[in-house]
Amino acid sequence: MKSTPTLRSALTARPRLRVLMGESTAIGPGKAALLESIVRHGSISAAARANGMSYRRAWNLVDAMNKSFVAPLVDTSAGGAHGGGARLTDLGREVLVAYQHMETKAARAVAREFKAFERFLAVPEASHAGD
Amino acid sequence: MKSTPTLRSALTARPRLRVLMGESTAIGPGKAALLESIVRHGSISAAARANGMSYRRAWNLVDAMNKSFVAPLVDTSAGGAHGGGARLTDLGREVLVAYQHMETKAARAVAREFKAFERFLAVPEASHAGD
Repeated sequence: MKSTPTLRSALTARPRLRVLMGESTAIGPGKAALLESIVRHGSISAAARANGMSYRRAWNLVDAMNKSFVAPLVDTSAGGAHGGGARLTDLGREVLVAYQHMETKAARAVAREFKAFERFLAVPEASHAGD
Repeated sequence: MKSTPTLRSALTARPRLRVLMGESTAIGPGKAALLESIVRHGSISAAARANGMSYRRAWNLVDAMNKSFVAPLVDTSAGGAHGGGARLTDLGREVLVAYQHMETKAARAVAREFKAFERFLAVPEASHAGD
């Protein structure tokens, strides 16, 4: 609990949407955030840093997304194999916008119920293991 | 691809709701399914088997849930430390019903958008790593 942003983030409960394909997540909050960062920063390495994850982790998520959809969402061909740029394909932009739209709509649909649900949630002591 | 149910499950895309508390999941599809199984089977070990997970994994999820909410969702006191029964507390039942209601409502709210989104998804070859 060093800074207000951290504290606020730790205390913020929110509903999030995931699109499951069988048992795996085709796209969810983490992958969507990574796509947003690729748009903003223009490379997987910079997007990884912005999302506090290793390059390897980010690359694996991009690779999984590129395989989960009918065509790649991220074009990594620009600039060579290492350290080159990355950008969203037309499909990538379309998928990201559609996902964000669905998540906003889902969250809005349950806003009242979620407000009531929040009273069940404990304020986390520090941080506990996620699932 | 041995049986129709497995195949169907692998091909089924669906939107799911998670309630995040900071970065950790207070309740999501996996934890909700575990609570449902505890209701059905009356013990953590039987619920773990029904959900294809180890007893340890199920116990950890229950423990995490019991700490994520203002009071425990699962009462494990009945029958001693090992192999005893487990049942949902009043709060546990209330949280499960509220979660299921929110998820149904969220899924319904994005049903049309999700139908359109499905065309972006690849049919998985066999099964690929989840996230």
